[in-house]
Amino acid sequence: MDKDFLLQTETAQKLYHEHAARMPIIDYHCHLDPAMVADDHRFASLTELWLGGDHYKWRAMRTNGVAERYCTGTDTSDWEKFEKWAETVPYTMRNPLYHWTHLELRTAFGIHKLLSPRTARDIYDECNAKLQTPEYSARNLMRRYRVEVVCTTDDPADSLEHHIRTRQDDFEIKMLPTWRPDKLLAVDDPAAFRAYVERLGEAADVSISTFGDLMDALRRRHDFFAGQGCRLSDHGLGAFYAEDYTEAEIKAAFNKVYGGHALTEDETARFKSAMLVAFAEMDWEKGWTQQFHYGALRNNNTRLYRQLGPDIGCDSIGTFSTAQAMSRFFDRLDREGKLAKTIVYNLNPADNEMLATMMGNFQDGTLAGKMQFGSGWWFLDQKDGMERQMNALSLLGLLSRFVGMLTDSRSFLSYPRHEYFRRTLCNLIGGDVEAGLLPAEELDFIGQMVENISYYNAKHFFQF
Amino acid sequence: MDKDFLLQTETAQKLYHEHAARMPIIDYHCHLDPAMVADDHRFASLTELWLGGDHYKWRAMRTNGVAERYCTGTDTSDWEKFEKWAETVPYTMRNPLYHWTHLELRTAFGIHKLLSPRTARDIYDECNAKLQTPEYSARNLMRRYRVEVVCTTDDPADSLEHHIRTRQDDFEIKMLPTWRPDKLLAVDDPAAFRAYVERLGEAADVSISTFGDLMDALRRRHDFFAGQGCRLSDHGLGAFYAEDYTEAEIKAAFNKVYGGHALTEDETARFKSAMLVAFAEMDWEKGWTQQFHYGALRNNNTRLYRQLGPDIGCDSIGTFSTAQAMSRFFDRLDREGKLAKTIVYNLNPADNEMLATMMGNFQDGTLAGKMQFGSGWWFLDQKDGMERQMNALSLLGLLSRFVGMLTDSRSFLSYPRHEYFRRTLCNLIGGDVEAGLLPAEELDFIGQMVENISYYNAKHFFQF
Amino acid sequence: MDKDFLLQTETAQKLYHEHAARMPIIDYHCHLDPAMVADDHRFASLTELWLGGDHYKWRAMRTNGVAERYCTGTDTSDWEKFEKWAETVPYTMRNPLYHWTHLELRTAFGIHKLLSPRTARDIYDECNAKLQTPEYSARNLMRRYRVEVVCTTDDPADSLEHHIRTRQDDFEIKMLPTWRPDKLLAVDDPAAFRAYVERLGEAADVSISTFGDLMDALRRRHDFFAGQGCRLSDHGLGAFYAEDYTEAEIKAAFNKVYGGHALTEDETARFKSAMLVAFAEMDWEKGWTQQFHYGALRNNNTRLYRQLGPDIGCDSIGTFSTAQAMSRFFDRLDREGKLAKTIVYNLNPADNEMLATMMGNFQDGTLAGKMQFGSGWWFLDQKDGMERQMNALSLLGLLSRFVGMLTDSRSFLSYPRHEYFRRTLCNLIGGDVEAGLLPAEELDFIGQMVENISYYNAKHFFQF
Repeated sequence: MDKDFLLQTETAQKLYHEHAARMPIIDYHCHLDPAMVADDHRFASLTELWLGGDHYKWRAMRTNGVAERYCTGTDTSDWEKFEKWAETVPYTMRNPLYHWTHLELRTAFGIHKLLSPRTARDIYDECNAKLQTPEYSARNLMRRYRVEVVCTTDDPADSLEHHIRTRQDDFEIKMLPTWRPDKLLAVDDPAAFRAYVERLGEAADVSISTFGDLMDALRRRHDFFAGQGCRLSDHGLGAFYAEDYTEAEIKAAFNKVYGGHALTEDETARFKSAMLVAFAEMDWEKGWTQQFHYGALRNNNTRLYRQLGPDIGCDSIGTFSTAQAMSRFFDRLDREGKLAKTIVYNLNPADNEMLATMMGNFQDGTLAGKMQFGSGWWFLDQKDGMERQMNALSLLGLLSRFVGMLTDSRSFLSYPRHEYFRRTLCNLIGGDVEAGLLPAEELDFIGQMVENISYYNAKHFFQF
Repeated sequence: MDKDFLLQTETAQKLYHEHAARMPIIDYHCHLDPAMVADDHRFASLTELWLGGDHYKWRAMRTNGVAERYCTGTDTSDWEKFEKWAETVPYTMRNPLYHWTHLELRTAFGIHKLLSPRTARDIYDECNAKLQTPEYSARNLMRRYRVEVVCTTDDPADSLEHHIRTRQDDFEIKMLPTWRPDKLLAVDDPAAFRAYVERLGEAADVSISTFGDLMDALRRRHDFFAGQGCRLSDHGLGAFYAEDYTEAEIKAAFNKVYGGHALTEDETARFKSAMLVAFAEMDWEKGWTQQFHYGALRNNNTRLYRQLGPDIGCDSIGTFSTAQAMSRFFDRLDREGKLAKTIVYNLNPADNEMLATMMGNFQDGTLAGKMQFGSGWWFLDQKDGMERQMNALSLLGLLSRFVGMLTDSRSFLSYPRHEYFRRTLCNLIGGDVEAGLLPAEELDFIGQMVENISYYNAKHFFQF
Repeated sequence: MDKDFLLQTETAQKLYHEHAARMPIIDYHCHLDPAMVADDHRFASLTELWLGGDHYKWRAMRTNGVAERYCTGTDTSDWEKFEKWAETVPYTMRNPLYHWTHLELRTAFGIHKLLSPRTARDIYDECNAKLQTPEYSARNLMRRYRVEVVCTTDDPADSLEHHIRTRQDDFEIKMLPTWRPDKLLAVDDPAAFRAYVERLGEAADVSISTFGDLMDALRRRHDFFAGQGCRLSDHGLGAFYAEDYTEAEIKAAFNKVYGGHALTEDETARFKSAMLVAFAEMDWEKGWTQQFHYGALRNNNTRLYRQLGPDIGCDSIGTFSTAQAMSRFFDRLDREGKLAKTIVYNLNPADNEMLATMMGNFQDGTLAGKMQFGSGWWFLDQKDGMERQMNALSLLGLLSRFVGMLTDSRSFLSYPRHEYFRRTLCNLIGGDVEAGLLPAEELDFIGQMVENISYYNAKHFFQF
């Protein structure tokens, strides 16, 4: 994992070191805890930083035969958990965790050793000692990686107090909120839905009893988010919803579910369709970018869900045939002239080609790359997944207009994924040049294209 | 893009230059306008030739932020449109358009410069000057690329007058019609269906009032096409239809839709199933080859569809799970002993393996490669798409029996796609030889195989 | 096809020759005929050994234009069939049959010539002469390839007499039965179902008139199989079944179908769901490993099915969207604490990523690699299929814990597929080392990992 890691040709090395590596980081979608930035959090141990909420690592540990108490248990020590992780690491060879782990050790802590039971104690002690120093606070980790902007992921009912506090602090790195109204689609549990809508009403200072009130509250919160610098929304979907509906149907469905009654399957689909359109129209009005992360099959393991809740490593790639609904959804917005800038991330690589071509249907010439096929997401956020996404985008769209990488991460140590992405990008393009697939005499243009995908495209697209 | 473009091993170079490159072109499926061949059309400008109907380029331009008026507008000049395309070209790096554009400039016009805003004017002027000369007429472009046969795509109601005229002219390149009866499946719009059926009746000199009349007219036109040298049919489908039906049901459905009434979903599926079988049986009787292009999700953008109609760059790859229907369809014909030679082209590469194995189920030993997995189509007509198709076919069928490449194009400049295909083919096989996956001592056989896939397999299969 | 066949880097060669090649073979899933092992069968000719039941070869021959009588006919001689196969072989270049054929000739018969019409007679005569010698008996072929364990595939009603006889013979290679109760899901034909259930009752010495009786008989046979050393079950499915059901519903459904009446679609789905759970619970109680081979679309060609029955080369890869049902099935068992060790094999490579992640949801930390994504199966049992399976498993799970290869074959000549697999594995990993993706200084660990995947993981997982 030397300076030319992943860079298999001289052109790739040149593109990376002279172009990509020089760019700052715009992390336009992540799940950092804003309070930790506001507080400039200090980490108690490498275990907190690495294993505190990392379901990728938990999955790998379980697969390696590690008992749950060493993953998520409360009766095991930080060291015991770390030890189990260190035992697992050599068994993750060829999994992205192996690269991520060592990239993070190298870039954050300057450690070039491989993590294994043999080195576990030394690495643990060295990292923990460093974590005690101010250089390893949340903000200083962000500075270390030359982060310029981060966009967190926030509920419409959120006060954004930590964003406000951070801005008032004059922290030089922009931390902006992202609007994620998923809970308004969660009508399957009427009681939880009502409780959430009431919380939203309080946040918006609107007493909600009708669908109109809900929309009113939602618009107020949308305005508030905009005032706090929000430029993106995000939506987590299994598949898209694009049923026809009337306003009367949606009002009735709202009254029914808000009144505590379960909706039928049809009512649910129509209600979700209507909400997606409402969200999309608001984003369009504000000039925001809407993001859709679709294709996950979540909470597959009921036993662990009951024990630990969601996002604990029991989600997987689904097989949703959502092309037609996606088409209807975007077509409706385009027909109304209300299609916002859009990024769609898919979780099943079998959908890459469908998605790359679907985006092309709604490019309207108003902005280069208006409709984006998003970077390899979650399980696909690794060399092969990135390469497949970039190859599909290249072949079926325009790679040159790609807004590039994001971490989608809860961790302050995930920024090397931008490095990983950029190395992979440069390796692909450099390989093409050396194979005669791209013209060597256009290396200046190609270098600019690498900088654009690494940084400038995002900067201009989101208008940061 | 020198003489060894795409040929990354010495064996690949040898196979290409000594075998593939020497073969003439059989373009057994294209969308050339027969009138342009009959008239030996001369092109007013490179814009007409390149941008007149090329939805691939329009999509790329829209994605690059170019306004619609420069793609399909009538208020912009040829030069303005070309200029916008030239601006877009550098941004298409890694998209097949980048290679196609420069291959076409090189092989048709002898231009080795890269197209960009810097070179746009020179290239435009040089090409336009050449287009004024007789060497650049439609027929001379076909001669330039050593085309031997082209099969156009024609409606059963078509008079084929341009085919007749061209043949009477003693044009030495065979231009044969292909039977494409898609409009008889378009029962969703009863009025348009009736109008079309009436037009078909006129062409066949049959007054149509029953389903039997329709079949009668259809058979007459089928005979007429056969008389004009037709050897193939073609069908554009989202998914296959293979419902059970009775003759009475189909007659009733015909009466209903012909009488102006919409069919139910079930009636539609049965009617389409019956028509596909009727088409297939006629092709079998004549010894034709039936082609199926399936898997497109068309006209996704209603706004542009209303403005410009179909085939304007708003189609995409769909996700149809059609394996079972495809199986039932071919099985029915095989059971009846009426399964014609067949080529199936799929649009979603996720279906490659399914399709490659599906064809194997109906190989009946009467003819080598009777059931063909067709070459990478539309969005997949590029290096990666071709490689994936050829790899799947190799691993799950017999590459050696493949009838190879076709342009599927409206343009007289698309013949270099055969060169592109052949280079890709030779690169795959040559790479295998040099990696020890194929025996170097069998290079004569392998050279013959390359010639077969480039030319002889098609010649024998279609009996040209 | 020399000693470094498929091994494209020095590290790959080292890993293969110093690690993988030294391991014995555990063939934990195959379709050998136990009687042939018990009898130490001698083969009459290479045709019997190679073409007797090999639907891969029949498919290739049909695709190559060879008439059915030379594939499966009874009016053609062994030599005539072999000759047609020899004619076909050169046309299988790039198909795994080309490699398999020559690997088998080399490793079993020491023949290094390529099979073609030119060499057919010599090779046929040389092989047939060798087949007359004792070295080429069934058992000696197994010894030649250093097989340690084979697990055959057996019906619950089977007497296992050949397994017993073989064990009593003190044959030093373990031949163990595998429990394959597919016929209990085949309720679509009530008469055949009843006949089978009665046969099962006889085998178990239970008179079956109720669902309880069936379960009783099944448990007795399960115990009997366990007594004969069975450690695995196997299930062939199109898609998974995971409907909710009550005991009363299942009892009623059994009575209905056993009484000769067809079940409705819902009853069928519920009955199959219940049977899958019953099978799974029994396997869990015994500590067995359950295997699922899903995704095939079988018997597509009715004409040949009527003539020759199943498994004659008219099956293909299906497109089943079974992720949700698979999730529900495993979740139910996990919730009950009754999820046995599991291997799932998929037939459509488009499902690789879904499946690799699905297995991760149910890794419970009790055993490394408890939930296995099985090796490339049937059509995918070739270099590309293996690589894609291993890459998906690596990226989305832990390759290091993979139980590796199996032949799934009816032939005593299929053991070189383990060699093929191991070379492919070493080539992947060796390539990674030389590209700097895996650390060269960890070559000892990597060598151990190769040995584990080739042999030790299976040995420990199945507790042979």
